[in-house]
Parts: sequence; structure tokens; C-alpha cells
Amino acid sequence: VPETITSRSAAVAADERDALAPLRARFELPADVIYLDGNSLGALPAHVPAAIDDAVRRQWGQDLIGSWNASWWDLPNRIGARIGRLVGAAPGQVVCGDSTSVQLFQALVALARLRLGRKLIVTDGGNFPTDQYLADSAAELLGMQCVRVSPRDLDDVLDRDVAVVSFSAVDYRTGELWDAAAVTAAVHDAGALMLWDLCHAVGVVPFDLDGIGADAAVGCTYKYLNGGPGSPAWIYLAQRHQGAVRLPLTGWHGHADPFALAPTYTAAPGIQRARIGAPPVLSMVALDAALDVYDDVDIAAVRAKSLALTQLVMEYCRMLPGVTVVTPDNRGSQVALSMEHAYEVTQALIARGVVGDFRAPDILRLGLAPLYLRYADVWDALETLRDVLENDAYLDPKFARGLAKVT
Amino acid sequence: VPETITSRSAAVAADERDALAPLRARFELPADVIYLDGNSLGALPAHVPAAIDDAVRRQWGQDLIGSWNASWWDLPNRIGARIGRLVGAAPGQVVCGDSTSVQLFQALVALARLRLGRKLIVTDGGNFPTDQYLADSAAELLGMQCVRVSPRDLDDVLDRDVAVVSFSAVDYRTGELWDAAAVTAAVHDAGALMLWDLCHAVGVVPFDLDGIGADAAVGCTYKYLNGGPGSPAWIYLAQRHQGAVRLPLTGWHGHADPFALAPTYTAAPGIQRARIGAPPVLSMVALDAALDVYDDVDIAAVRAKSLALTQLVMEYCRMLPGVTVVTPDNRGSQVALSMEHAYEVTQALIARGVVGDFRAPDILRLGLAPLYLRYADVWDALETLRDVLENDAYLDPKFARGLAKVT
Repeated sequence: VPETITSRSAAVAADERDALAPLRARFELPADVIYLDGNSLGALPAHVPAAIDDAVRRQWGQDLIGSWNASWWDLPNRIGARIGRLVGAAPGQVVCGDSTSVQLFQALVALARLRLGRKLIVTDGGNFPTDQYLADSAAELLGMQCVRVSPRDLDDVLDRDVAVVSFSAVDYRTGELWDAAAVTAAVHDAGALMLWDLCHAVGVVPFDLDGIGADAAVGCTYKYLNGGPGSPAWIYLAQRHQGAVRLPLTGWHGHADPFALAPTYTAAPGIQRARIGAPPVLSMVALDAALDVYDDVDIAAVRAKSLALTQLVMEYCRMLPGVTVVTPDNRGSQVALSMEHAYEVTQALIARGVVGDFRAPDILRLGLAPLYLRYADVWDALETLRDVLENDAYLDPKFARGLAKVT
Repeated sequence: VPETITSRSAAVAADERDALAPLRARFELPADVIYLDGNSLGALPAHVPAAIDDAVRRQWGQDLIGSWNASWWDLPNRIGARIGRLVGAAPGQVVCGDSTSVQLFQALVALARLRLGRKLIVTDGGNFPTDQYLADSAAELLGMQCVRVSPRDLDDVLDRDVAVVSFSAVDYRTGELWDAAAVTAAVHDAGALMLWDLCHAVGVVPFDLDGIGADAAVGCTYKYLNGGPGSPAWIYLAQRHQGAVRLPLTGWHGHADPFALAPTYTAAPGIQRARIGAPPVLSMVALDAALDVYDDVDIAAVRAKSLALTQLVMEYCRMLPGVTVVTPDNRGSQVALSMEHAYEVTQALIARGVVGDFRAPDILRLGLAPLYLRYADVWDALETLRDVLENDAYLDPKFARGLAKVT
């Protein structure tokens, strides 16, 4: 556990010691903003605009259809391999493309079809809504039922009726990090299959998908991976299942011989069968370039800084009257704070340049992206929060409830 | 029927009379290329790079998460409305997002669920492979069966067992344009529902989805709409079905109250329920800007020019020894030519700056995009084709079969 930071000068000193501090220069960040919402939308890597401009003007504008063979066709594999390295997946098990929702559906149906004799898909009632909705949808299509249980109470439902368990590694609201190895082992002991949603883990929490024996995983790329708004998601299918899984979205890119344009579907060998149709290339190019930031970065060092930043927030906020730190010690890279008037406080902070987000009913969620946040930024943000609370600044009618914000 | 063009000077004269000729200036096109593959990937509209750059540097880089509310959240609706205008859909029936494959799956399952007592999903054995594969997949998930029949033989299978018929308006290989009104009426007479794939029609063939009573439709946006590589697709659901359809991909963006983040899914009223998760924003921004090109364009005029350009190709090629014009008079905006060595001929043409594409086993496919092609371009391409054939230029070993190209 790193030393507690109790002053701005201590925060500045921590920045001076921080081996990751130079990474901040790889990003374009707005002046006068402390951005604590990188867990919703990561910041813009500085070299991404040029990469996109090249894709638009040269690859699309000049080379036109020729760019499909020259570069674009392989993007889902190339990006998949780069993400695989960040989540402990040996090559050949990850492809990128489509949205997280689509990838969740693919993984849920594919795994459940490997256990068709069983009746239940298990999800977490605290899982992100889309995860829950798609577990319901997949269960209905396959004649199964969906049950909701927290990872902490998994034993209550885990028996031979369970086909698939689908959990998020990090709770999107509280930030709690589950013991993925233990959960996966328990699921396998019951003969079921395990799907991990790594949206809030990839890029900040070291993960060893192969090592823990995960059966499938999905994740988005627009949070800590900084792929840009709505950048495509990815899917991991463990090598041992690849020959057997039957994915529902049978697009021609996943065909064994796509360019034969055959009238019936034969799934490609390996992870290629998880490709669907033409992915959104411009968004993929942005993501591919954004991943350069991680090329020489040690995820363990990112994790250490993430823990130090979140510790700073948690320790500071435990001293704030009326504020409850919801996030437990086992955590991802965000801190959830419950308080009265959390919505208005979030708005008052934004007005002062501290950007976090609100989660109903009473959570102020602060995301700590270790690649571009300084300890001093976090200190300043906390001082701003204290001031907003002490001076009731959030009671200004201009901060009253309007449109909620987006994950 | 326009006058036959039988010389380059006649082609130049046709350009001089062409009211759509100024539209070419709205595109960036490579020098020394005649691009006859706009039916695979449309050309780059000249103002798109600036729109993307603004989305990247300002909306993402500076405004960060705030851009979701300010602009991005509404993109699927805004773009959907613009596309709706091009396909005869009154407002509130089209949203944009995800790939064509995903939208096909959504539409197939949604319509088939409205006819669960029936047994068959009908597709065209000449349909684009993905359309066929997904009809098989949807049928399997719903306990139905999939049968393949050409639109011309639909009567052979159309009875009370048919739940859904899924055809493409334009055959992707031959370019044949089906009589969508007659097909839809026959399908409805049998009590079944009709899904149209407009990938090869939208932007060049006037379509009246509301008028013909289509039940659902999907289409891509990277062909004649010039949305960029892999730009997101769209889905049309007729208003009369919107309250009843149950889509399989139940992402939170399609929820009645998305920001409540409720644990169970309640479909949004209207077409909003066809939204899924976060769409690829950068690709959507490119598409949105690309659609500006169509703002003041009369689709009937585009259709007239398309017919004139394809007529020029067809009449010219009927005179070429060894070449068979496969495309019938009822056609979209492409011409399919069958010939021996079609692959090698395609490559020899590309080497001379005439870019078309090959479709197995023996088709050279020429796409005629009326917004940026001149009659003189088409004339020059045809002269090049004649020269390649007459001089056996395609026999050069460097044009021998390698990687096929992408739609």
C-alpha cells in the first residue's frame, strides 16, 4: 500500500516520482479540465488525428477499394492480437469489431449452445444493463432462463442446471473487482462456462484470461483503451472451444472461405469465425492507433498507479461529511461515492472543470485513468469537491436535474 | 430510353447536357482512375475529412464525454431520418448503427417473431451470402426452416407456412432489380412479412418503402451513399409493427428509459427500440457528412443518369466478342458481364486505371455511380476493356489469380 497523500505538495512529489508521468504527453487534453471520466470515454491520444486523416484521405480517398486488401481486411485480427496481450490471451483468440452488445450476444449464445442440456444463464443483477438484457434475450432464444445473482452469492445458484455465467470483472457502479480466478473455477466445478465482461478492466486491471481458464470474454475499447467514441468492441473465445462454438451472427467475414461467397455458411477455423461483416473501419483505425500508447507500457505499473490514485480518492473522501465511499478495497480504477444530491454535485463539479459522472440514484463516480492523470490533478479535484460540498455550491438551481449523462 | 452513345464525342456531349455533372466536384477522386466500384465502396466526399477532423479534435479531444449529449446520442436518429427520405420512409421509421449483418439479424428475428405459428423463412439463393447465412441462423434460433428461392419463383413456395420473405431489391451479382411492389403484395397476400435488403439500391434506385407496404428493410451506407469503409448500416421498421416487434439485440440504447439503467429491458416506443449500444461515432460522423451530398439531389434524376450510364455499358458490351451482358433491363446501377478469364480481365483493367470488380465464377462487375461518373469516363473505360480483350492483355501472368476483392 503506497503512502497516504495528505497535501498538494505530497501529490506533486508523487508525480515527480511517477515513472508513468511522461505518458500524459501522449494525449491531447483540454486546458482547465480535470478529466475523471476516462472510464466512460478515454481521452484523445495525440497521434490519432493524423492516423485517421491518413485513413480518410489516402486509404479511402485515393486507394479506395484497394485498401480492403492492403490494410482493412486484417484490422479485426491485428487489433484483436494487441488487445489479447493486455488481457492475458495468447494469439489467435481475440478479434475486434461491432459493439459490446453484439459481442455479448455472440458470446452468450455461443457458450450456451455448448451446454444446451442445461437450463440457466446466470448474470449479475448489478451488471451493466445491456449485459442483463442480452442474457435475458439469449436465454429466451435458446429456451433457457436467466437468473440474477451477485458474484458474491454465486454459490446460491450454481448447480448442474447452469449453462453459462456472465459477470463483469469490475462492477460498473461500485467499482468492485471480483476474484475472477475463483469465480471461474467455481463455475467450471459446476460444469458450466464462464463469460467475463472486461469493459471496466481492460487496460487498467491485469487480467489473465488464459490462466484462469475463462471460456469467453468481451470488452469495449472506448474507456481505458482510448479508442474513441463508440469504438468497436472485442471478443475472446478460448482456443479449446473454437472448433465447436456456433455463433449466431453468421456474417460472411466469419466464413471459412469468405471470398467464395458460398450460399451456405461454413464457420472459419479458429477465432476468425467470430468475425461478422464489414467493421466500421474509420473507428477501427482510430482504435488501432490509440493502442500504440500501450505498446511499451507495463500493465502492472498501470495497476499500481491506479491503486494509488484510487486510494488517494478513497482516503480523502472518507473524511468528507455526508460522503460514503462505496467502492471496496478490491477495486478497478474508479471510485463511487454516495451522497445526497449526487446529481447536482456532479454538475457543480463539471461547472468547475472537474468532470466525473453520476449514476442513479445517488452515486458520484470518479474514473482514474492512470495514463494521463496526475496525482496533483486528483488532489485538486478532491479539494474542489470539498469546496462544493462545504459551500453548498450544488444547491444553485442551474445544477438541478436535467439530462443524465452517458457511460 | 436515352439516345445511344456511340462515340467519345457523344459521351462528352452527354456530359455537357448532364444536370448532375456539377456533383462530381463534391468528391475527391484519384487522378488517372476511372472508378467503377462505387457499388463496393463509394468515393470520398470532399468535405468529409474536415467533418471527421472536427469530431476527433474538438468533439472527442476537447469536449470529451460532453459530446454524447451535445451531439452523438442523436446521430442514429438524425442519420436514420436522412436515409429514410431516400427510401420513401416517413419520419420515425429508420435508425442507423451497427453492421448490415447485425441489422439483418434484428429484422429477420423481429419479423419472424410476429409470425411464430409459421415455419419458413424464405431467402433468395442468389442473395448476398450474409443474407442467406443469417436467414439460416434466425430460422434455427426460432425453430423455423429456411428455404431458398429466386424472387421470380416465389409463387412456388409462398403459402401459409411462410413467416418472412427476405430478398435484396437488386441482385448483388447480376444487378437485376426486382419488382418490389409486386413481391411485397404477394407476400402479404400469403399473410407473410417482407424484409428488403436495399444495400445495392439506396441512393440510386428510388424506393417507396411506405408506399409498397414493406414490413422491414435494411441497407448499408458505404456503397452509393459514400459513408466510408464499413460505415454503419440502417434498419427500417414499418410504423404499424413498431409497438409489437421484439428485437433480439436488446442493448440499453433501445430501452424506453435508457438513463435509468434499469435491470430489465423495456423496449422504447417507436423506432428507438431498434437502437442497440454505442455506435461507432467516428464512422457515423463521416456518414452524416457524406449524406450532405444528397441534400439537394433528386433521386429521380440520379436514377435517370444511372439508367443512361448502364445502358451505355450494356449496349457497348453487347458488341464485344466473348462478352455476355448478364444484367437485364430491369436493373440497379451496375452491369455484370460474364466472360472467360473475368478475373484476369478485372486485374488488367485495374492496372490501366479502370477499377471494377470480379465476382466468381466469371463475372466482371462494373458499378456506375451517377454522382461522380461522367459519360466520358464510362466511354473511356469501355474502350479500355475492348483493348484489353482484343489484345489479350489479360493473359499477362501478372494478372493471374491471387486474392479476390471485397464487396
